Amino acid sequence: MTSRTEHDLIGDREVPADAYYGVHTARAVENFRISGTPISAYPGLINALASVKEAAARANRDLGLLDPSRADAIATACAEIRTGALHEQFVVDVIQGGAGTSTNMNANEVIANRALELLGHPRGDYEHLHPLEHVNLGQSTNDVYPTAIKLALVAGLRELRAAMGGLAEAFHAKYVEFADVLKMGRTQLQDAVPMTLGQEFKTYAVMLEEDRQRLGEATDLLLEINLGGTAIGTGINTHPEYAARACAHLARISGVPVRTAENLVEATQDAGALVQLSGVLKRVAVKLSKTCNDLRLTSSGPRAGLNEINLPAVQAGSSIMPGKVNPVIPEVVNQVAFEVIGNDVTVTLAAEAGQLQLNAFEPIIVHSVLKSLTHLTAACGTLSTRCVSGITANRAHLDETVRGSIGLVTALSPYIGYANATEIAQRALTTDRTITDLVLDTGLLSPEQLDTLLSPEQLTRPRPLGDTA
Amino acid sequence: MTSRTEHDLIGDREVPADAYYGVHTARAVENFRISGTPISAYPGLINALASVKEAAARANRDLGLLDPSRADAIATACAEIRTGALHEQFVVDVIQGGAGTSTNMNANEVIANRALELLGHPRGDYEHLHPLEHVNLGQSTNDVYPTAIKLALVAGLRELRAAMGGLAEAFHAKYVEFADVLKMGRTQLQDAVPMTLGQEFKTYAVMLEEDRQRLGEATDLLLEINLGGTAIGTGINTHPEYAARACAHLARISGVPVRTAENLVEATQDAGALVQLSGVLKRVAVKLSKTCNDLRLTSSGPRAGLNEINLPAVQAGSSIMPGKVNPVIPEVVNQVAFEVIGNDVTVTLAAEAGQLQLNAFEPIIVHSVLKSLTHLTAACGTLSTRCVSGITANRAHLDETVRGSIGLVTALSPYIGYANATEIAQRALTTDRTITDLVLDTGLLSPEQLDTLLSPEQLTRPRPLGDTA
Amino acid sequence: MTSRTEHDLIGDREVPADAYYGVHTARAVENFRISGTPISAYPGLINALASVKEAAARANRDLGLLDPSRADAIATACAEIRTGALHEQFVVDVIQGGAGTSTNMNANEVIANRALELLGHPRGDYEHLHPLEHVNLGQSTNDVYPTAIKLALVAGLRELRAAMGGLAEAFHAKYVEFADVLKMGRTQLQDAVPMTLGQEFKTYAVMLEEDRQRLGEATDLLLEINLGGTAIGTGINTHPEYAARACAHLARISGVPVRTAENLVEATQDAGALVQLSGVLKRVAVKLSKTCNDLRLTSSGPRAGLNEINLPAVQAGSSIMPGKVNPVIPEVVNQVAFEVIGNDVTVTLAAEAGQLQLNAFEPIIVHSVLKSLTHLTAACGTLSTRCVSGITANRAHLDETVRGSIGLVTALSPYIGYANATEIAQRALTTDRTITDLVLDTGLLSPEQLDTLLSPEQLTRPRPLGDTA
Amino acid sequence: MTSRTEHDLIGDREVPADAYYGVHTARAVENFRISGTPISAYPGLINALASVKEAAARANRDLGLLDPSRADAIATACAEIRTGALHEQFVVDVIQGGAGTSTNMNANEVIANRALELLGHPRGDYEHLHPLEHVNLGQSTNDVYPTAIKLALVAGLRELRAAMGGLAEAFHAKYVEFADVLKMGRTQLQDAVPMTLGQEFKTYAVMLEEDRQRLGEATDLLLEINLGGTAIGTGINTHPEYAARACAHLARISGVPVRTAENLVEATQDAGALVQLSGVLKRVAVKLSKTCNDLRLTSSGPRAGLNEINLPAVQAGSSIMPGKVNPVIPEVVNQVAFEVIGNDVTVTLAAEAGQLQLNAFEPIIVHSVLKSLTHLTAACGTLSTRCVSGITANRAHLDETVRGSIGLVTALSPYIGYANATEIAQRALTTDRTITDLVLDTGLLSPEQLDTLLSPEQLTRPRPLGDTA
Repeated sequence: MTSRTEHDLIGDREVPADAYYGVHTARAVENFRISGTPISAYPGLINALASVKEAAARANRDLGLLDPSRADAIATACAEIRTGALHEQFVVDVIQGGAGTSTNMNANEVIANRALELLGHPRGDYEHLHPLEHVNLGQSTNDVYPTAIKLALVAGLRELRAAMGGLAEAFHAKYVEFADVLKMGRTQLQDAVPMTLGQEFKTYAVMLEEDRQRLGEATDLLLEINLGGTAIGTGINTHPEYAARACAHLARISGVPVRTAENLVEATQDAGALVQLSGVLKRVAVKLSKTCNDLRLTSSGPRAGLNEINLPAVQAGSSIMPGKVNPVIPEVVNQVAFEVIGNDVTVTLAAEAGQLQLNAFEPIIVHSVLKSLTHLTAACGTLSTRCVSGITANRAHLDETVRGSIGLVTALSPYIGYANATEIAQRALTTDRTITDLVLDTGLLSPEQLDTLLSPEQLTRPRPLGDTA
Repeated sequence: MTSRTEHDLIGDREVPADAYYGVHTARAVENFRISGTPISAYPGLINALASVKEAAARANRDLGLLDPSRADAIATACAEIRTGALHEQFVVDVIQGGAGTSTNMNANEVIANRALELLGHPRGDYEHLHPLEHVNLGQSTNDVYPTAIKLALVAGLRELRAAMGGLAEAFHAKYVEFADVLKMGRTQLQDAVPMTLGQEFKTYAVMLEEDRQRLGEATDLLLEINLGGTAIGTGINTHPEYAARACAHLARISGVPVRTAENLVEATQDAGALVQLSGVLKRVAVKLSKTCNDLRLTSSGPRAGLNEINLPAVQAGSSIMPGKVNPVIPEVVNQVAFEVIGNDVTVTLAAEAGQLQLNAFEPIIVHSVLKSLTHLTAACGTLSTRCVSGITANRAHLDETVRGSIGLVTALSPYIGYANATEIAQRALTTDRTITDLVLDTGLLSPEQLDTLLSPEQLTRPRPLGDTA
Repeated sequence: MTSRTEHDLIGDREVPADAYYGVHTARAVENFRISGTPISAYPGLINALASVKEAAARANRDLGLLDPSRADAIATACAEIRTGALHEQFVVDVIQGGAGTSTNMNANEVIANRALELLGHPRGDYEHLHPLEHVNLGQSTNDVYPTAIKLALVAGLRELRAAMGGLAEAFHAKYVEFADVLKMGRTQLQDAVPMTLGQEFKTYAVMLEEDRQRLGEATDLLLEINLGGTAIGTGINTHPEYAARACAHLARISGVPVRTAENLVEATQDAGALVQLSGVLKRVAVKLSKTCNDLRLTSSGPRAGLNEINLPAVQAGSSIMPGKVNPVIPEVVNQVAFEVIGNDVTVTLAAEAGQLQLNAFEPIIVHSVLKSLTHLTAACGTLSTRCVSGITANRAHLDETVRGSIGLVTALSPYIGYANATEIAQRALTTDRTITDLVLDTGLLSPEQLDTLLSPEQLTRPRPLGDTA
Repeated sequence: MTSRTEHDLIGDREVPADAYYGVHTARAVENFRISGTPISAYPGLINALASVKEAAARANRDLGLLDPSRADAIATACAEIRTGALHEQFVVDVIQGGAGTSTNMNANEVIANRALELLGHPRGDYEHLHPLEHVNLGQSTNDVYPTAIKLALVAGLRELRAAMGGLAEAFHAKYVEFADVLKMGRTQLQDAVPMTLGQEFKTYAVMLEEDRQRLGEATDLLLEINLGGTAIGTGINTHPEYAARACAHLARISGVPVRTAENLVEATQDAGALVQLSGVLKRVAVKLSKTCNDLRLTSSGPRAGLNEINLPAVQAGSSIMPGKVNPVIPEVVNQVAFEVIGNDVTVTLAAEAGQLQLNAFEPIIVHSVLKSLTHLTAACGTLSTRCVSGITANRAHLDETVRGSIGLVTALSPYIGYANATEIAQRALTTDRTITDLVLDTGLLSPEQLDTLLSPEQLTRPRPLGDTA
């Protein structure tokens, strides 16, 4: 394999002749052999970097700081990257030291070499177009990288919210399907009072919709960028108009309505929006996990469990137990949730560790949040299509559990008193008789009154007391 | 000590004759001997319970379900509690099983007995006014407790936001005081480029203000209550108009603009707003901790440290090292932050563990969040008054570090090129000479140009390139 | 209230005339108004401090550095404190800045003033016996405080292990009681294969015993102390023989076989043993929580749940649902577990934040670990006496679930083949018939063979295949 | 691409004709599209599965349950896999539902098809050798998978401990190199008392060695396996001698001295050893992170920082600041540490979520712990070779900081008294004079006494007081 020689402050170094990346990338690859996963694993991040670099080049051209031919070559290279080209040249590890410098350098070098090629020069011929002096002009890793991160996250959030929307719809369809199926509601795992299975499923849909709103709000916080702040937010080495122009170009190129933060020194060191986003993703994970716990619990059985609903069988459940089918889809979602919650702790530690004018640990923050985003997206889609949409209800069994339930006494309590009701409940427990039978024995209510009070309509919503006639 | 006998489903039990609480509370005290801290440690929670109970009584009276004399006695008892009376009667442990039932029972019993007293009856004479049938009428722990929690948190948030506002002001005052003090900005702990000490302190103020906004948004989510949902959110045993009336009374009594959630089944089981709040408190903690890390770092010394600023001495620092003064105030704030971050994990676990129609683990969620709130409030106040307001700057030393800094070369890089600049920086490092000297040696810039480029005004904000004349 | 004037590097300050603590304590109380909980909340820590101070005084006396009368007065004061005296004088907040300096100062001052009193001098008359020059002689907070912490934790661990032992015995008794009760084992909440209820309960006992062993190992790590290292572990201002003598005295006084760490510089800054201990406490919490989840799950019902076992009723479960009894004891244990897991994160953050020669955040580590220890101890005791020992089994129901179970087919699979077994299992599911019936239909096994293969002895342990005669 | 048809309880399904995996794997791949990372990413896990399967086959052959030709074919296939063959056929996602069933099925199918091939049959021709009836004979995912996990972890731990050993050696070499370099020790970031730079580096070596011991202990816990417990630990469908024989074979094949757990029901559901291991990995991470924080802090500068040591430059530090070199290697290690700490929370949640006779969430536990192991291993190697071994000291500067330090007064305090010493320290601070000068002024000590007391030998270890002559 032929190579070319490049140079940096450490000295000379060979890079493969056909590589679009250069010396800085090559050193970073050597330095960070940690996860084996290159940053190209996050295409949204690569595309976002290309958008930022193009926006910067265009702003610099507007201000007369970059000549049109170089600026255009850079812009073309960036546009190509956004179509998926050259992503394989983004080779530095997702876990890297240096506050994202290696990611930014990787982008600078790939863009410079592609632009050189477009201008008819060989790769590495940086005197015609330089990764730092031209591609990175007026920029620092410390404003480019956080800005690109935010764009990537906004794109990732869009996908997550869509997947959550699909899942919410799947739950909503079950709400409609099960609207008339009465079941026992439970508190603290003990039989409580009746509700409909539809009400139970609607809850999951409502939770998801609320979480989608929270994610929308978290997205809004991400729109604030620090492009133009350069090294520490003071904007050193930028033109006074640069930040505004670059932001406008970026909004146009990316289609994301980014805005320049009011205080760039603060914005450069502050990982708050990422912490907040991770916190909201954790919230999503917590509720998805709770929902999957419920699905696993209510589908437990088939004989010795609650056996209220059936999850569709998607694979054989056991290598030793014939015919066993397991709730593997909710289980995998639970695991994603646990991962997301762990990622949130990683993000928290990394954010807390920021010092003075910069957080050097943004790469692990980004890696963690992007993993959370993509895995949650996959989990929601999987749960929706491979589980929720195929759920069926064991209507007869559910009906039985309501009719035999001691919890019915709660509905009668306002008419017969808490003390009488308690006594009847205890008697039901020891005699194995039904509440209806026992109440009739006492003569406190007539069969007709009981019928009215215990009708599904009466049991599952508020009603005027006294309304037993 | 004399006693009276009360009764529940377990059987008879003596309670102290002068106790306002009753049998349910007494059993709970016995059952939960965990932390030794009674719920009265959170007066805001007790007051909130009293508000909810009064609102319920008034709504029930409006609807003709509770006679005026009982309703008024209950309302009076609740009003008294909100003035601080009888708090010592709220004796169940803050860590308790039962989804808050014991807390609700404690409130029901104390209010009932005080109301009985107001009506001229002895304590325990529940046939005249019953803790469950009257004080708890139309209610369940599962709507009363979450509603009270939210009121208590709203009150706690108001105090935290005030303390954060005070701290932001203290930082802002330092921004003004240090607006003209030049210092070296640092990224990754390495000397970067100059900035003002004022810019550094303003950042802390801006961060706090942003966090206050986030807390405001989280507060808004807390305004949604599930009062009227009773056991599982279906509103069983409530009048159709009860929820709206109770909510209106509660808003009036508490002064907090609460609103009834749209879907009460969802609202009853969903701990999402608490998870979100805890996540935002964690965000606040992360940034406070980062700020305190910075204060400790920049005040390190006095001789072998960075020695940029001085924190006021508030106590002797060492039992063995005479004259040593330590940054104990930032240190205690760091520790509160670590506690809050741990609390967030507790909240997450407890929220994830909710099952079906209820989260049985709300007591530990509430305990954790209230601890986070009150400790953060104390920490902000302490940091503001005992540390930030007394900070002074070592101006001469800071000036020296800027003038001797290699980072100055960045400001010259656009004029002399990245490659030249790198070479000069490396030479400075090995020869121990200043950047100014070395640049003059090269003849690349004149002394006048250097003076202009390295003036504080030029160094700490954007400027048109080429502007060296 | 009269007062006396004391002096430190900040200046003069009044302290109450009758206070045993002095100026350093008074300033610390003012500086750290965070949790409102004084260090006296941890009597084990106060006693441990008294042991360390006595050991130091005796070592100094041995070495001729402290005169006998002062040494004896200090020793007497310390011995008194260990009987519970003067604990109310330990007033600094459990959350405090300063790496434990305030706690050490508080101890120095209380001991000095009590010793002064014993010697016939008024409090504050430090020229006769000085908190720092005599009580703290040859010591630093940085060796005294970590040493005392470890003693306190060893004592706390002893209590936790005893409580866990009691709980393990309670589970073991149930293992014996339920040794012959067959039930369906479950994996992934789906019916799996039969086991005995005794086997299920024995598991909990075994888990606890294993955890007790792990705690024993963690205790061993705590025996390594850094007393004699003083400020940073170099032993500055100590006699070469001091560390060994103080350690020997301390082992004798406390009854704990402490040993001096090999490398005191390392031992002074390393919070590793505390992190490890917290990790093991987390392990204990995880398994206790899992156990309680199981208890809540298998006792769910009474009608619509698994209804396998009954937990003793310890209080009424609901303010609205008459007769409802909830698993409040397991629930409170779950919550303690969630708290302990959160505490572990706090400990982790505080440990990671240690810098250079000291971890300044030990107070929050200690507070967190002591909370975990004491709450877990309370939780184990509560679970044992108020829940496990009263558990009963629903034998008839359990028997039914086994006989009707599809999981029985697994035991037949080696004789009829996995494919046949799968088909029969699926048929059982759709036809609602039993496995026994369906197998007999196929003629693959005789009734006698079935009887043998499905006997409890065969189902719940290994057996030679082919053994069906 | 041609395909073959396979069958399971869901129905028929095509798999690629040349695939060694079969229908169960194909369904799992479809079901779990989460992370995109196949289990082959962990070769140690694949090898461990092959060892377990071979051990089971050999045990079954010994017991006459599996004929020699099938047993040998299985054993050969397993041996081939352990040389690295067919790893690309292990295609199920690392994040998967089903408690590892899909991983076990994947192994069963690949081994069966390779064994079929060895026996001269086409893939999929399972009547000659069946993935479940032969490869999985006497096994369940629930004993195979946990056993394989433990083997894989033991192998991973061996590598981590080796990497930690190398890092400890690198630190130890620096201890030797810097044994005579005096520097200021610091507590709470404030100048404390002198020590040698060698002492500082030795601490890091000692910490690592202690952590290696803890990992050794955690390894020991992993040696306990549940092979032979099958579905829930009761050993259903195994021969009474199977567990012991399989264990013996496994120990021989793997070279790891595994032993059968005493109580297999407990061992099957208990994730305690994994939680403990994860906790110890967290401990390692905490201390590595602390060490890297120290390295970054003491190498801060070059002009405005502590500037005590120099880390080797491994890449250019900034895209905008010429000549800037950053501590990127410690930074990447910090990030790995944050990731490991987050992984520990994931493991905790997954372990706590285990229910009844099985923990269904082991896949995410394994994924998390293996990530922690491999990333920590990489981090230690990187830190050792790319950073620690090239560290140099700024001796002159360190010497200056000691001579100018106020902390020297501590060494004099026993001779001049704490009060005098405090006064002199305060005077030094305000007058900017040295302690030596000020003490000489007072006449409390002679120049000769000062020389003796402040010699490096005296300052960095214990010494008899009074020894000033």
